[in-house]
Amino acid sequence: MFKVDLNCDMGESFGLYELGNDEEMMKYITSANIACGFHAGDPHVMRKTVELAKKYDVGIGAHPGFPDLLGFGRRYMTCTPSEIKDYVMYQVGALREFCSAENVRIQHCKPHGALFMKAAEDKALARAILETIHAIDPKMIIFALNQSEVMEEAIKMGVPVAKEAYADREHTENGSIVLTRKGTQITDYEAMAQRVVRMVKEERVITYDGKDVSIKAETICIHGDTPGAPILAKKIVEALKEGGVEIVSIKSMI
Amino acid sequence: MFKVDLNCDMGESFGLYELGNDEEMMKYITSANIACGFHAGDPHVMRKTVELAKKYDVGIGAHPGFPDLLGFGRRYMTCTPSEIKDYVMYQVGALREFCSAENVRIQHCKPHGALFMKAAEDKALARAILETIHAIDPKMIIFALNQSEVMEEAIKMGVPVAKEAYADREHTENGSIVLTRKGTQITDYEAMAQRVVRMVKEERVITYDGKDVSIKAETICIHGDTPGAPILAKKIVEALKEGGVEIVSIKSMI
Amino acid sequence: MFKVDLNCDMGESFGLYELGNDEEMMKYITSANIACGFHAGDPHVMRKTVELAKKYDVGIGAHPGFPDLLGFGRRYMTCTPSEIKDYVMYQVGALREFCSAENVRIQHCKPHGALFMKAAEDKALARAILETIHAIDPKMIIFALNQSEVMEEAIKMGVPVAKEAYADREHTENGSIVLTRKGTQITDYEAMAQRVVRMVKEERVITYDGKDVSIKAETICIHGDTPGAPILAKKIVEALKEGGVEIVSIKSMI
Amino acid sequence: MFKVDLNCDMGESFGLYELGNDEEMMKYITSANIACGFHAGDPHVMRKTVELAKKYDVGIGAHPGFPDLLGFGRRYMTCTPSEIKDYVMYQVGALREFCSAENVRIQHCKPHGALFMKAAEDKALARAILETIHAIDPKMIIFALNQSEVMEEAIKMGVPVAKEAYADREHTENGSIVLTRKGTQITDYEAMAQRVVRMVKEERVITYDGKDVSIKAETICIHGDTPGAPILAKKIVEALKEGGVEIVSIKSMI
Repeated sequence: MFKVDLNCDMGESFGLYELGNDEEMMKYITSANIACGFHAGDPHVMRKTVELAKKYDVGIGAHPGFPDLLGFGRRYMTCTPSEIKDYVMYQVGALREFCSAENVRIQHCKPHGALFMKAAEDKALARAILETIHAIDPKMIIFALNQSEVMEEAIKMGVPVAKEAYADREHTENGSIVLTRKGTQITDYEAMAQRVVRMVKEERVITYDGKDVSIKAETICIHGDTPGAPILAKKIVEALKEGGVEIVSIKSMI
Repeated sequence: MFKVDLNCDMGESFGLYELGNDEEMMKYITSANIACGFHAGDPHVMRKTVELAKKYDVGIGAHPGFPDLLGFGRRYMTCTPSEIKDYVMYQVGALREFCSAENVRIQHCKPHGALFMKAAEDKALARAILETIHAIDPKMIIFALNQSEVMEEAIKMGVPVAKEAYADREHTENGSIVLTRKGTQITDYEAMAQRVVRMVKEERVITYDGKDVSIKAETICIHGDTPGAPILAKKIVEALKEGGVEIVSIKSMI
Repeated sequence: MFKVDLNCDMGESFGLYELGNDEEMMKYITSANIACGFHAGDPHVMRKTVELAKKYDVGIGAHPGFPDLLGFGRRYMTCTPSEIKDYVMYQVGALREFCSAENVRIQHCKPHGALFMKAAEDKALARAILETIHAIDPKMIIFALNQSEVMEEAIKMGVPVAKEAYADREHTENGSIVLTRKGTQITDYEAMAQRVVRMVKEERVITYDGKDVSIKAETICIHGDTPGAPILAKKIVEALKEGGVEIVSIKSMI
Repeated sequence: MFKVDLNCDMGESFGLYELGNDEEMMKYITSANIACGFHAGDPHVMRKTVELAKKYDVGIGAHPGFPDLLGFGRRYMTCTPSEIKDYVMYQVGALREFCSAENVRIQHCKPHGALFMKAAEDKALARAILETIHAIDPKMIIFALNQSEVMEEAIKMGVPVAKEAYADREHTENGSIVLTRKGTQITDYEAMAQRVVRMVKEERVITYDGKDVSIKAETICIHGDTPGAPILAKKIVEALKEGGVEIVSIKSMI
């Protein structure tokens, strides 16, 4: 039987500013990566998003980022591993309090934006994040790209790790994703959904430059601010079901 | 036997900016109010300050403030009770994670600056803070001015409350303190120390305008950024010991 | 011949967050109040908004606010007049540089949100703002509510002042507006447009509580984040033209 | 006749936090690099620092940095050249308004911290800064390291440029400075002063790794937060005078 978890970044509104279509997406996903106030999100948004995840029985993940609201955490900052540890601990702790208030637990951690991309290739950064979440809760699952430093170090350290692939981004040969190259966002929802099914069942994907490579997808990310994200999510859910893939929470798989 | 707790605001440095003489003050106090990143403090400072409190076996308190680093949390902001609840929960949660990492607990909460002063006279604000910390931990002690709304509501709600007086600020007849009036900061350390002893043993203080009034002082605040704060702290400790007052952690008294 | 200026808050996006429908609104208005980075807006948004105002030949105004991005400048902060002076000077200066780069001038200043509402009733705050913009440019026009402290002090000081009324907010008897009371946002566009025409031509308005009072409207504010704002703006422009009112830049009237 | 300008970073306090000994340093220097609120400084500090520079007849420079108060602008952020242009324009504009209020002009620009160091080796970043200040004022002088991209591009573009060396940092063979390597801060004030004299008169310096290389020093930077900075500044001034070097404002040299 094939299984997969579906995740989405959530709670990325800030003050008066709204981003994403959180409640709509909650209906399709099994894991929510909730922003913690550094790159996006604020205390009010965090509380509401935790409540929403609970309402839809979606697994909650911390989604810590660089302290860069202006750049939405998408700009790499040359922070030291020690700074990163403290930033991650602060953000996870703040989220955990909102979870405790609702009697739910943090299931996983997915670093955001530049922190996620940089940690994939920087062992010291990867370890800073992993050591922090492992100290907080040894059962906390880290989401990581195939072949990334985060993946490798997590395995070495015994941190539960979920291999992640993307519904709405192109992949590279080494398991990473392409963020900036023109034409790397697929827009044909049906094609995207079929690609997800193939990643899960055949463990293969066609890269942005046309190669057919191996990939492991235990959790699939769908971006909530992709135009038409709920429609895409719906298509993916339907295609997975049709393909005989069960959509389950990541904690039941790892 | 007379007993009193000594508290001090701590961890109010930020990035490159240093404030206060935290390690020196830790030697004299029994409760540390640790800033949580909104009015002062940052994740790195918080970790270091929690470690310091543990090293000197000082009780740890959350010291949440308004989100106003530029004004050091000393400016009142017309936030709603719902906003305050989320701000307090976020800040306490972040601090709690650093405490968990060191296997220590948050013992108390003392709101900072304008949040502290406004809550003393605003029932809705007082309740917003009290409900939040009570939900987080029913044993968490709130520090409150004599006769304040925080005090009265805490008693009604069953939140453990410590009556607070000040070593380095003048008091008013109704148990509040005077922040801005010229001449309201006492500078004679010996006089300050004796005043503390009198507040603890006789439960009386001379107000800023010369009245001799009743006051209850279960915890005494000494400001760490008062010039010569460690010298003042030392004098107070000596005067208390000489007066037969035991300096103990607030959690042993409430 | 009747004349009126139409103004709208602009440039209130921030980083990835988008707010308002700036380009659409520029087609209808004659004065743009551009956020300066404290309550909303950022350097990139400011440059783009100045370019947009220039493209549509719309008069540019500074729209300074409290340093409270999280609260969108809608929460009053107990800043001193001296702090306000420095905050206004900083924000106007930053905007002025983007204007200089496009060879356009700042025509007016309209404080934002809580700063605007508080200054209307607080003489010291009103003077702090007026003294600052007057020192920057004696020709800079201030936008003010009828009967406000800003209005009265501006007249005393010789600061050019434009009397402002609102298309999409209810008014009070003393020329102020109602922000929070339920039902105070009119939603019938046709009624709103006719009310604007009446304010301009008859100098009268029905208040939120049903009184018919006198009002002077040299400039009319339309909020760009009101749902359907461009449709409302279009209706107002049509109704004014039909009513024989010329829509002109405020600088040609003051 | 030998001539040199002495510069120092100024106005890097923030809110309650104080940094540096600005008034004391103003007595010795001829150019002040004033922080503009992104990495340090705030509107109040900026006004006070401009007043101070005017009082001591010190040339004023903009000191823009990355938007990273928490990291004091010392962490590189992967901003685009377009973002940098807008950030520099915003910061210079804000400072310019405080200068206009005091009837003084901005004489120069010295980027701060990571922005300064990265621009020295990144042509696109160098040009983004240069194009911005050149558009603001073609007479504005840029401070640049010997052999840096900023230096080379400034010369190509016709932007007035001042070659800078450091009193309290070690140099490298290619005209850069060493920030992090242990032992690279000289602590012998007399030796530092003599090194400055040699850089100015002989145009040579011994690098951190012992090489005797050529260097041009039209302006010498002294860090105001170096312990004992005013004492070092005094020693440098005395040594230069003794060596027959005139200390003059950079604008009289370029």
